[in-house]
Formats: sequence, C-alpha cells, structure tokens
Amino acid sequence: SKTHKIAVIAGDGIGQEVMPEGLRAVEAAARKFGIDIEFSHFDWAHCGYYAQHGKMMPDDWFDQLKGFEAIFFGAVGWPATVPDHVSLWGSLLKFRRDFDLYVNLRPVRLMPGVPCPLANRKPGDIDFYVVRENTEGEYSAIGGRMFEGTERETVIQESVFSRKGTDRILKFAFDLAQSRPKKHLTSATKSNGIAITMPYWDERVEAMGAKYPDVRRDKYHIDILTAHFVLNPDRFDVVVASNLFGDILSDLGPACAGTIGIAPSANINPTRELPSLFEPVHGSAPDIFGKNIANPVATIWSGAMMLDFLGNGEGKYRQAHDAMLAAIEEVLVNGPTTPDLGGKSNTTEVGKAIAAAI
Amino acid sequence: SKTHKIAVIAGDGIGQEVMPEGLRAVEAAARKFGIDIEFSHFDWAHCGYYAQHGKMMPDDWFDQLKGFEAIFFGAVGWPATVPDHVSLWGSLLKFRRDFDLYVNLRPVRLMPGVPCPLANRKPGDIDFYVVRENTEGEYSAIGGRMFEGTERETVIQESVFSRKGTDRILKFAFDLAQSRPKKHLTSATKSNGIAITMPYWDERVEAMGAKYPDVRRDKYHIDILTAHFVLNPDRFDVVVASNLFGDILSDLGPACAGTIGIAPSANINPTRELPSLFEPVHGSAPDIFGKNIANPVATIWSGAMMLDFLGNGEGKYRQAHDAMLAAIEEVLVNGPTTPDLGGKSNTTEVGKAIAAAI
Ligand SMILES: CC(C)[C@H](C(=O)O)[C@@H](O)C(=O)O
Ligand SMILES: CC(C)[C@H](C(=O)O)[C@@H](O)C(=O)O
Repeated sequence: SKTHKIAVIAGDGIGQEVMPEGLRAVEAAARKFGIDIEFSHFDWAHCGYYAQHGKMMPDDWFDQLKGFEAIFFGAVGWPATVPDHVSLWGSLLKFRRDFDLYVNLRPVRLMPGVPCPLANRKPGDIDFYVVRENTEGEYSAIGGRMFEGTERETVIQESVFSRKGTDRILKFAFDLAQSRPKKHLTSATKSNGIAITMPYWDERVEAMGAKYPDVRRDKYHIDILTAHFVLNPDRFDVVVASNLFGDILSDLGPACAGTIGIAPSANINPTRELPSLFEPVHGSAPDIFGKNIANPVATIWSGAMMLDFLGNGEGKYRQAHDAMLAAIEEVLVNGPTTPDLGGKSNTTEVGKAIAAAI
Repeated sequence: SKTHKIAVIAGDGIGQEVMPEGLRAVEAAARKFGIDIEFSHFDWAHCGYYAQHGKMMPDDWFDQLKGFEAIFFGAVGWPATVPDHVSLWGSLLKFRRDFDLYVNLRPVRLMPGVPCPLANRKPGDIDFYVVRENTEGEYSAIGGRMFEGTERETVIQESVFSRKGTDRILKFAFDLAQSRPKKHLTSATKSNGIAITMPYWDERVEAMGAKYPDVRRDKYHIDILTAHFVLNPDRFDVVVASNLFGDILSDLGPACAGTIGIAPSANINPTRELPSLFEPVHGSAPDIFGKNIANPVATIWSGAMMLDFLGNGEGKYRQAHDAMLAAIEEVLVNGPTTPDLGGKSNTTEVGKAIAAAI
C-alpha cells in the first residue's frame, strides 16, 4: 500500500507544543487503520529561523516541499521579534499562494462538552462550513505609500478578484453544499459598500448558482452576517466568502461554538499537484507559550482532515478521520481538558488521552 | 434661544415607519427641555425617487442640505428595484463623504429588558463605543474591471488610507477614551494579512497613543477581535476601526448586546461646518416593511444622540438625551415592545409609549 509523504512544520510559539500531539493522534489513527505515513520535519518557517537568516525560509523551500502530499502545520508568528506581516507573508501566506491552496475549508461545530458562549445552544445546533478563498482578494501585496512621512502621506492597497479565482472557490463551495443534506449556500458579500469588487462577487455567485438549481442560496452583507452568526448560527450550512471575510467568519464561527482552541482548517489545492496544508485556525499565542497549556484539539482535528484528504474521503481514510473525531468528542466530554475549556490538564495529557481513545 | 434647523430624510422601507417615532420622541424631549427645533422634510434619497428620476437625489442636494445643523435619517436601500451599491453610493455614502462626516460613533450597550444572545451577561457587562472611520479606507470608489466578460476577467479595488483621515479618527477615539473612566482604547487591525494599509494603521495608532500616555491601548486582528466580542465583550471600552472593520464591529457588537434593532449611530463632522447625520444602524429591512412592526428604538436613540450633539453634550441638551435614554430603558423593561424583542406591539405603539415616558 502507498506511503503518504507528509511534511511537518511546527513553526512558532504553541505550534511547537501542539504539533507533537497532532502527530501522536495521526500516528495512532494511521496505525489502527493501516495507513502508511512518512513524516519529514522541517525546522524553518518560524521566527527563530528569521533571526538567524534574515528570512523565514531557505531559498529552495518550494523545491524542498513540492513533492509532499501534504504539510502538517502548527502556527507562525512571533511579533516581539518579527512583525507579523513579515513572518506571515514570508511563510504561511507564501504557501497558500505558491502552492495555489485556493480552498481554505473550516468546519464550525458546537462539540459536546464545550461550553457555548451563546445562550441555549446545544451540540447539533451549530454545524456548518466556512469555505474561504485563500489566494487573492483583499490579501494582495500590491500597493504602497506616497508622500511618506508628511502630512500628505497616502497609503493604497489593492484588492484583486479574478474570474478564475472567484469561480473556482464558488464551485468548491457549491459542490460541498450540494453534497450535504441541507444543500444550502450562504454568500458573504458587502456589495452595498465595497462597490467594485463585491458586486462582482455577487454576479459570479449568481452565475455559478444557476448551475446548481438544487442548492438553495442566500447572501448577507458581512456586517449583518456576523450578527447572524451570533443570533442565528443554526441558519448556516455552507458559507462561502472572500479571503478577508472568510478569515473573519472562521474565527467568529468557532468563537460562537465555544472556542478558537479547537477549530481546524484545511488549505487545499484540489488538483493535488502540490501539497495541501493542514493547520489549526488559532495562531502561535505568545501569551501562553511555554506553559504547555495550549489546547491540542485544533491540531488533532486538522490532522483528521488531513487523513480524510489523503484518501479522498473514502474507505479507511474516512474511518480514520471519524475515529479521530469520535476520540476528540469523547475526551471533550469526559476530560482531560486544557484550561481554556475549564480543565486542569496540559497539552500533552490531553493529546495522550485522545491518542489513547483512538 | 437658538432655533436648530434639522433636515429629515426617512428614506426607504422601514425608514418610513421608524422616522415618525423618532420625530415624536425628539419633539417630546425638545418640548420638555425647552429646545427649539425646526424640522424640514425631504422626499428624496430613496429608491422611489430613483425610479422617477434615474438618480437618488436632485443635483442641488448639497446646497439644499448644507445649511442644516443636522440630518435625521431613516434608512436607504430597496434592492428589488435599485442595486444597493447604486442607492447607497448615491445617497448615504455621498453624505458621509461630501459632508466629511468622518466619525461614525456607535454605542454598544446591553440594555435592561433586552434578551441577550450571550450566556450569563447582564446589563452593565457590555458598554462600549465603536468609533468607525467613515470617509475613506476600504470604501473607495477607485478601481474597475479588465478583460470584462472573459476568462481573464480581473476586478480591482483600492483601499485608501490617508494620514489626515487616519489621524483625525484616532484623535477622536483617543479623546473619547480619555474622557471615560476606564481610559481604554482597542484598535482593530489586520496587519498580519492586509500587509500594506494595516501596518500603516498600526503605526498611526502608536504615534497617536504616545500623546495619550494615560490611555491604555491594545490591538487585535479583526478576526480574533470578532471572537472576543462574543467571548469577552466586557473587555472593551472604546474600539477604533477603519471604515470596513468598523462597519462589521458595529453590527456584531449590537448583536452581542441583543439586537441590531436598537443600535443608534452618529455620523459626525466635528468641525460643525456641515450637517452631521444621525441614523439607526439597521437598514431598510424590505422583509418586514409594510407591517409597521419595525423597532423604533434605534431611531429614537439616534435622535437622542442628535440632541446631545446640538448642545455639545451640555446642559438641557444632555438632560434631553438622558431623559430619552431613560424612557427607552423604561419601555424596554415594562413594554410595549415590538416582535423582534418578543413583544406584540407595533412601531407606533412603542414610539408613543417612549414619547409618553419622556
Ligand atoms: C448600508 C451600508 C452601505 C452601510 C455601510 O456599510 O456603511 C451600513 O451597513 C452602515 O453600517 O451604515
Ligand atoms: C495569521 C494570519 C495571516 C492568517 C490569515 O489572516 O489568513 C490567520 O488569521 C488565518 O486565519 O489563517
């Protein structure tokens, strides 16, 4: 049977603490379901590397990574020494762009055992996906400053939406919606205010929607959409959004479902010609780093999404994914849990418990 | 004593239904505190006008309005007949820009009697201001399409941040924070991803903050900031944000405090050389228009902010504002209330009850 080659990059801060638990869980599931994985560790794409080399990654990073099927990623960013935009654009955002990981898929689910900040919501009430465009839109590197340092200083940045970039993320989202029982797609827009790019987004949603007559679709401006995440999270099934709006919704959604600490994500290149990347939604969290109290669930869940991806959602791969999710649920309900969920256990204890439950 | 000249524009949809109640309440408070107001009604800046004239407003709108001290505004937008970006950029957003209403001030408060969607939050726990830049930033009209209608179609829009535009909104926000007991300012950023304009925003916050050593300041990226609105709304005092981020936060905040239906706003030109504009945060709500069930509280509260503004927050003007707020609270607690708050009363009944309580 095939050996899956996975690159592992723990990165900065709590990325270092949660990654060993992600690996422990993936290894347990792989062993149990007879999936053959080979991990290769890379000690760059973190701010310590930057301090030594003046860059986040070696020049041949692309060649070093391109042959892998997937990258299992922790977190990056250490603003005390490297500005975030330097560390992120020098690593994670480069991966997303250069490996053309145009889908950022982020499940939002209220899990059993997780206290919900919303009144009267129970597991099952919140269960949807944010499908985020991941390569273009508001995250551009085009623009600059004029009249620098003077009263007339002006800073301009361009958002770029291409038909190719817009249509392919919409297609992914409509396909996903069509595969789910509710067949419901919500588009995040802001065409009333962001009056050039967002009306275009709306047009492409209409055009793509016409090909999916069985998918019910609606759209909300991003401002009121964030309100509905709080007031009516049960209204959503698949939410498709631009790069920036998807970024916002995929932190807000998990917060409504209790915590960012368990939210996973998959950065996917559906062609599979280049590695896809799996990472927790949370960042490197310098404030809690070093205490070994970070919640490893987001990384473990991301690992489950990675296994599912490796097998195209089929057979033993899907079983491995489901077993990992079941183990996560079991441990969330019965403990041990980390302090962010009110528990007293550390990262390693929770990771071991989940691996054991698998 | 001075007569204050106010322009009234009810606009579209429920703007038509809530404005009479806004006026009723403002008149009651003005009468009680001996404030002299003269209202002039304008029947344009709505989509019905567009249908007849092919534009939202007459060509001399600026001259017609520029002599007023304030504009009391309902809502605009009727997407079934006029695309939102056309109606909004042809009216409300024109006012904001051409009258240089660079401050959009939006209180977020959990009011007694309002059911809160967040678990275990009571009145007093949520009480902050969103200070939104209101004239530039992501809301630009610069950009366009290339290769239209082809596979290569590309759409570009520019965000524009000027030193003048950034510094003046920051100054307003720091002044406001300094005047409040907690003296705490939170800046909304996204400098890790939006890597040209947002690092600039951060720089200007630093620079302005240096002049306010007694104001404690922090910053969050917009994604995690929306999460904190849900998880830790008690953490905020004054939140300053760019045009788009402020738009999002000022819908999300009120949702966390129960409902958009009561959230007011002031669009202020602090020089007072041109009229400031007061409007509910909610829009024209085509879905409920015609039933007379819209909640008039947001408009009444906006009217209270207008009275406060007319008197610079002093004397009988502040008293009138406070009396209106007290009346709103009384009616929120004892009823009558509109269906969005679980009540059975209509817009007029609620408006009359608040006016009577004043
Ligand atoms: C209607 C729309 C253009 C407007 C905005 O985005 O500013 C509204 O959402 C607001 O918050 O006042
Ligand atoms: C770290 C940051 C650049 C990144 C993003 O904005 O995409 C993160 O917030 C995410 O959601 O993956």
